[in-house]
Amino acid sequence: MRDASAPEVVVRRLALYLRVLNGTSADDKDYISSQELGERTSVSAAQVRKDLAFFGEFGKQGVGYEVRFLRGEIARILNVDRVVRFVILGAGELGVALARYTQRRRETEHRYPFLLAGLFDVDPSKIGQMVDGTAIEHLDALQDAVKEGGVRMALITVPAQAAQEAVNAAVRAGIRAILNFAPKSVSVPENVRLHNADVTLDLHHLAYFL
Amino acid sequence: MRDASAPEVVVRRLALYLRVLNGTSADDKDYISSQELGERTSVSAAQVRKDLAFFGEFGKQGVGYEVRFLRGEIARILNVDRVVRFVILGAGELGVALARYTQRRRETEHRYPFLLAGLFDVDPSKIGQMVDGTAIEHLDALQDAVKEGGVRMALITVPAQAAQEAVNAAVRAGIRAILNFAPKSVSVPENVRLHNADVTLDLHHLAYFL
Repeated sequence: MRDASAPEVVVRRLALYLRVLNGTSADDKDYISSQELGERTSVSAAQVRKDLAFFGEFGKQGVGYEVRFLRGEIARILNVDRVVRFVILGAGELGVALARYTQRRRETEHRYPFLLAGLFDVDPSKIGQMVDGTAIEHLDALQDAVKEGGVRMALITVPAQAAQEAVNAAVRAGIRAILNFAPKSVSVPENVRLHNADVTLDLHHLAYFL
Repeated sequence: MRDASAPEVVVRRLALYLRVLNGTSADDKDYISSQELGERTSVSAAQVRKDLAFFGEFGKQGVGYEVRFLRGEIARILNVDRVVRFVILGAGELGVALARYTQRRRETEHRYPFLLAGLFDVDPSKIGQMVDGTAIEHLDALQDAVKEGGVRMALITVPAQAAQEAVNAAVRAGIRAILNFAPKSVSVPENVRLHNADVTLDLHHLAYFL
C-alpha cells in the first residue's frame, strides 16, 4: 500500500539512494552500509536508516543492505520497477533538450525507467521535425498517443502564457502526473499530481541559504 | 537572522508565493488574501498563513497581505532583494539552454534577480563562442570571474563523469551554493550548500505518486 504520508524530502532522497544503487554493480559488491549510502548522497547514515525504515525493514544490523534487494525495493516504492512512459508538451529549446537528455539516458543506462512516448507542439513549422528519432506531433494528437501508449506523465515546457492550456490538454487526455517547467502556476483537478520544476524556483530555494 | 530550521518545502513554497506576487501589479491590487495566494499556487489558505507566520507577521486579519510589502519581505527572506550573480559550468545543450532561459527572464521581468556572470567549459572548440551576448570561457578563468564579479552560485551542467571535478573547481573559486544538474552525486565541504536538480530525480519523485 502507498503510504501517502511519506514526507516529500524522504521521497526525493529515495531517488538519490536509487541512483547510487543503480551505479553500484552487484558484481563489485553485494552489500552497502547506511554509512556508505549516506556518504555518496551527502546524507547522514542515521538519516539513511530512518528514511528506509519509513518503508520497511530492508537492512541487517552489522551487515547493511543487500544491493540488488534494496534497489528492487526502492524501485518498487517509486513505481519505477516498470517502464514509465511520458510525453513532453512544448518543443522549444528546453523541451528539445529534455527530450534528447532523457533519450540519451535511456540508451546508455539499462535501468533508466523513463521512456519518451511523444513530443508535442502547436507551431505548424515544428510539426514533423525529428528530435533524436521522435517526430514532433501536433497537440491535437495527444489524446490518442496517451491512450494507445499507456502514457502516465507529462512534462510541460511551453511558454508561461500557454502553460494552463497545455496542462488542460494533458488532463483531458488522461494524464494524472505533471511536471511543470513553465514559469507560471497552473491549476489542476484534485486527482492530478502537479510538481513545479521551473529552474527559477530552484535558484530561489538555493539563494535562501546564501 | 536566518532561521535555519525552516523546512525545505516551506522555502520552496515561498518562491511560489513570490512568483505570484511578482506577477501581481500593485496598481491592480493593494492587498491579496491567503485564499487567493493559495488558489494561485495550489496550496490551502491555512497552509499559506502557516508558511508566512513561520517568518513573521505579514498580514492583517480580514484584510490580507499588502502586496508590495509581502513581496519585499519574501524577497528579503530568500536573499533575492538584490542581484544574485551566478555562473554555469558546462556549455553543453542543457547549460546553453539554461543560460538563454535565465537571460531571457532577466530581460523581460524587471524583478528577476538572477544574473548570469559567466558560462564555462573545458572544450577548446567551445571557448569564445557567444551565447546571447555571453562568451564561453575556459574553466581556468572561473576563479577570477567569481572574485571580480561577486558571484554567489554555480549551476553544474557537465556530464556525470566531470561533475565532481567541476564542483571542486567551483568550491576552490569560492562558490558556496551549487545547483547540480549532472546525474551524479557529488561531495562538497560542510560550508557549501548543494542542491540536486537532475530532472531524473524530479521524474522519480513524481512517479512515486502514480
